[in-house]
Amino acid sequence: MALIVQKYGGSSVGDAEKIKNVARRVAQTKDKGNDVVVVVSAMGDTTDELIKLAYQINERPDERELDMLLSTGEIISCTLLAMALEAMGYEAISLSGAQAGIRTDAVYSRARIQKVDPERVTRELEKGNIVIVAGFQGITDEMDVTTLGRGGSDTTAVALAVSLGAEVCQIYTDVEGIFTADPRIVPQAKKLSEIGYEEMLELATYGAKVTHPRAVELGELFNVPILVASSFTDSPGTLIHGGVSMEVRNKVKGIAHDLDVAKITVVGVPDHPGIAASIFEPLAKANISIDTIVQNASINKITDLTFTVAKSHLAKAMEVVKPIAQSIGASECVSAAKLGKVSIIGTGMQNTPGYAARMFGTLSEKGINIELITTSEIRITCIIDEAKVKDAVQALHRAFELEG
Amino acid sequence: MALIVQKYGGSSVGDAEKIKNVARRVAQTKDKGNDVVVVVSAMGDTTDELIKLAYQINERPDERELDMLLSTGEIISCTLLAMALEAMGYEAISLSGAQAGIRTDAVYSRARIQKVDPERVTRELEKGNIVIVAGFQGITDEMDVTTLGRGGSDTTAVALAVSLGAEVCQIYTDVEGIFTADPRIVPQAKKLSEIGYEEMLELATYGAKVTHPRAVELGELFNVPILVASSFTDSPGTLIHGGVSMEVRNKVKGIAHDLDVAKITVVGVPDHPGIAASIFEPLAKANISIDTIVQNASINKITDLTFTVAKSHLAKAMEVVKPIAQSIGASECVSAAKLGKVSIIGTGMQNTPGYAARMFGTLSEKGINIELITTSEIRITCIIDEAKVKDAVQALHRAFELEG
Repeated sequence: MALIVQKYGGSSVGDAEKIKNVARRVAQTKDKGNDVVVVVSAMGDTTDELIKLAYQINERPDERELDMLLSTGEIISCTLLAMALEAMGYEAISLSGAQAGIRTDAVYSRARIQKVDPERVTRELEKGNIVIVAGFQGITDEMDVTTLGRGGSDTTAVALAVSLGAEVCQIYTDVEGIFTADPRIVPQAKKLSEIGYEEMLELATYGAKVTHPRAVELGELFNVPILVASSFTDSPGTLIHGGVSMEVRNKVKGIAHDLDVAKITVVGVPDHPGIAASIFEPLAKANISIDTIVQNASINKITDLTFTVAKSHLAKAMEVVKPIAQSIGASECVSAAKLGKVSIIGTGMQNTPGYAARMFGTLSEKGINIELITTSEIRITCIIDEAKVKDAVQALHRAFELEG
Repeated sequence: MALIVQKYGGSSVGDAEKIKNVARRVAQTKDKGNDVVVVVSAMGDTTDELIKLAYQINERPDERELDMLLSTGEIISCTLLAMALEAMGYEAISLSGAQAGIRTDAVYSRARIQKVDPERVTRELEKGNIVIVAGFQGITDEMDVTTLGRGGSDTTAVALAVSLGAEVCQIYTDVEGIFTADPRIVPQAKKLSEIGYEEMLELATYGAKVTHPRAVELGELFNVPILVASSFTDSPGTLIHGGVSMEVRNKVKGIAHDLDVAKITVVGVPDHPGIAASIFEPLAKANISIDTIVQNASINKITDLTFTVAKSHLAKAMEVVKPIAQSIGASECVSAAKLGKVSIIGTGMQNTPGYAARMFGTLSEKGINIELITTSEIRITCIIDEAKVKDAVQALHRAFELEG
């Protein structure tokens, strides 16, 4: 008998019928003799509707109040799932984040889990209950309700799996697993049966929005395998785990892409200590997330500094950066929207030459100009024209022989 | 500077505009230099919608799960009210029942408050916050969420007023106060500026559904004055309090009525100990609330036993009582629906003869037959034909000179 943590997202519990469907899946897992802990997100658009209501009342709702408001969405879905299981004759109990012992810091709207006190969950499991936990939420030392921000419910699920010593954390969603590329762009894309944590992290961060990087990081840190699969089919899904060292590692695992990229270049920056900080600290204060940063080698103590932001942040970022550029003596500050990002990812690339060359060659053959290049040990990313992203993904998928 | 507890019902916080209206009223109270604690119910139909959703999933939803589900309604409205106050420049904080220290027993769906730990509320008041508390809910020693059942938010408000030593508990609703009779039936009915706890209890229990008896009882027990007033007008309302002993007490305070009355008579009951218990214990187990019970004087050790129930419970009550009647040797068991109840209420009646006579005389003049009579020290109630209730209320209102 194993302990299994399952997580179902908002689209999986969107209405009464879908909740009953999830209950049947949970019951199957219980029937196989497992202890089951289930983490659920809020039903469908509940969170968006609550946010809309809040903004009708206050254009800048207080984050503590907003977190307490939004936390109700997951409580509703978890009580309903418990009722659905009880209607099928199973013993089930719902727990709020507070009741499940999800302790966080007090950074509202994006709290981090500090620890999990699994005492109540364990006690309910021992009674024979299926335990349903409200995802996305926790509680501070002051008993104030927090939400975990993006990827919150995935993170709740993995954190519970870690603290309970679960065999696996199963994340059920509306896709069948992790693919070698986005199947909407590459119809031949193949579902991976397994992938390493690091590869998944690079994929997730670089555009494959199936599982949130936070959850994957947590899984990696405590070595909890994470299964990503569909809540609507019985397809086996993709297992994210650490034990893939024995497999042949000479391959790119997948192609990720992102269409939401804008670029700002500060031209002719005097290259001395403190310059980067003087640009990026004010951006951070203005709450603008910076993605890629590239600084070219300095020639005559003058360099160009380029970074990318989400398109929606471009105008605000330019407002912040222009006066700084002037004050530090840069010659100009230029921007471009309409960019995209394409990445090849795979631990097999790590000690093997030739992947970068093949990537650049493939893009070149397609007449695609590369605006920026960044790499990690297991990833190569090119920033290119937004309109060429689809072509690039398809060409790279072929070039690296990812087709089934 | 006083501490004031205010309570706003579901119709007062039905949408974003109404919540802003409540925020303005709360702000006015704060502006006068008071510390303010506000208790809110769930917005409009929220609770009914959540119940509907629950029943779509499970025809007999577990009460613990249902309580946790329903508790979200009040959390939503209290966070939104806090946001509305913040939008007006006031410092406010919302607290769930758990956070506000509302500790209850574990009788789900109708929990009783065991104590209030007002430490957090006090701390927030000291910081200068207006404190908004989710009504209708509490928490058990096990950290499980309970709801308080009917009149729950009124009870939360009075309990907080008691534990915080508030000057007054103001209950804002959609009526302007307590009237000498239902103004929809008696257009000349007069709003009372004050009323005693006991009179209010009799009025509330006997059909004037403005403030729940539980809340009034709690106010009486701890001597906290309760103001009942409209959240939509600035009309002064009715103060329910204990200090009315000095006023002239020779009058009926008000006429209450109830149209939801059905009657069962067990005829020819052998009058020996245990008979009443043998009838009413099974009814209690079947969850049927009994209202009035009348047993006539026994003749030759045979008596008739009559009691009233809500019309919706009549069929089920007959099912329970018929076999019992047979087994105890009663001669028959008859029922009548389509009854109503009319009561005159006033502490002034207590030691003064003539009220009963005038009541019966008035009904007789109108040709209204009295089916049953019951009295308390400050109330006389007649069960009559449902169709005659309106006439009876109007006639009694005139007869006891309650008109303005």
